[in-house]
Amino acid sequence: MRMDVLTLFPEMFEGVFSSSILGKAREKGIVSLNAVNFREYAGNKHGTVDDTPYGGGGGMVLKPEPIFHAVEDLLAPRAEEADKAEGGFSRAPRIILMCPQGETFTQRKAEELAGEEHLIFICGHYEGYDERIREHLVTDELSIGDYVLTGGELPAMVIIDSIARLLPGVLGNEMSAVTDSFSTGLLEYPHYTRPVEFRGWKVPDILLSGHHANVADWRRKEALRRTWRRRPDLLVTLDLTPQDEKWLKEFQEQAEEEN
Amino acid sequence: MRMDVLTLFPEMFEGVFSSSILGKAREKGIVSLNAVNFREYAGNKHGTVDDTPYGGGGGMVLKPEPIFHAVEDLLAPRAEEADKAEGGFSRAPRIILMCPQGETFTQRKAEELAGEEHLIFICGHYEGYDERIREHLVTDELSIGDYVLTGGELPAMVIIDSIARLLPGVLGNEMSAVTDSFSTGLLEYPHYTRPVEFRGWKVPDILLSGHHANVADWRRKEALRRTWRRRPDLLVTLDLTPQDEKWLKEFQEQAEEEN
Repeated sequence: MRMDVLTLFPEMFEGVFSSSILGKAREKGIVSLNAVNFREYAGNKHGTVDDTPYGGGGGMVLKPEPIFHAVEDLLAPRAEEADKAEGGFSRAPRIILMCPQGETFTQRKAEELAGEEHLIFICGHYEGYDERIREHLVTDELSIGDYVLTGGELPAMVIIDSIARLLPGVLGNEMSAVTDSFSTGLLEYPHYTRPVEFRGWKVPDILLSGHHANVADWRRKEALRRTWRRRPDLLVTLDLTPQDEKWLKEFQEQAEEEN
Repeated sequence: MRMDVLTLFPEMFEGVFSSSILGKAREKGIVSLNAVNFREYAGNKHGTVDDTPYGGGGGMVLKPEPIFHAVEDLLAPRAEEADKAEGGFSRAPRIILMCPQGETFTQRKAEELAGEEHLIFICGHYEGYDERIREHLVTDELSIGDYVLTGGELPAMVIIDSIARLLPGVLGNEMSAVTDSFSTGLLEYPHYTRPVEFRGWKVPDILLSGHHANVADWRRKEALRRTWRRRPDLLVTLDLTPQDEKWLKEFQEQAEEEN
């Protein structure tokens, strides 16, 4: 899978693209990651990529030409390939604008995008985008949450990380096991490791009992308790067992007693 | 303001901490940013910071000692200072665990944290945290959204960026102007800049009219339209003017006609 990023700050990506899981996924040849400075497509000797907004007001707006040209340059080899091929060439890349007005990114979207062959991310930096970029170039607009950032670079890294870890061969078994606990739809149960006592705080006895069924029960109950306390919205769409329902009633009663 | 990050991948932070707004905020002395490898606090010659979970199951769990020791080492100079001072020393730092089970980060939380003097972020990496870290060390647990990442490093960068840009002196006027548009509670209106025509796509006439009141009206209406289409949830908490209500009714009627 190929992921390209258009940015005015390609140096922000160096550490992230070469460390940890992303670094390993690149070494294994599973992903190709590439940060392109779209200032190179400014088309003027000053490298100007923004201008004041029509209609007045503060702030600067990213001009359409540099971004259109940068994307088209990334697509050019593909177009040549398509000319040679007799049909059946690869799918058109998704062109994703990072912006606060975009659809909120979720795990479902990560799974959808992990099925693509080529993604291009466009990152603005404390500036608006000329509307024609939105209307005539991009296929998706994404936001990672309801908070204001100085640019689209960190959101692009977040989305690239969440997609890359879903690609076959990227995560080893030892890593996927932990994250698999998300697939239950509940928050994770509490984890404990050595030492069995740290500054007087002990690991719960049940985890030391060696009784697998009891451990599994305790973990389900504690995952359910944490989800009920912190993210009750996640319980709504969940298939709960009769035992889960009993535990939820127990939490409710305990909470009422405490009040 | 001081922000420290505990991580096993300090090299991920180099590019981000030295570029753009964060780089400038550091140069100006407004923020001090520091990534600490908590493997240095492993307390064993192999640098082991994780171990298998009590109760069995896959995955690894971060041990409590290295993280407690790393945090305490960051706090040590503060403790000495407090010993010397006759009361009135600085507030205790917030110790923030990056984890998917945490409270979802929002702009309101960014504003709250921007009022602190010292923040310490703890980043795990595809591993669980020993529960005693949660119970006896951290003051906050934060998540940046409902998606799975390989570690807490990118979320910590996102939160640090959103906080730093709120600190006085970090953003120049030219930048704050654009982002101020969030303060209306609506998504941003469409922006346009030169050229007035690009590949046959023109800037709306009204923005070229020089009529400021009409431009302001158009922008309010388009911001409202975009919010209504993409994020109707944001409209609920908003103070709408009678004109806004009329426009919303117009959008509704247009949508019904189109169906």
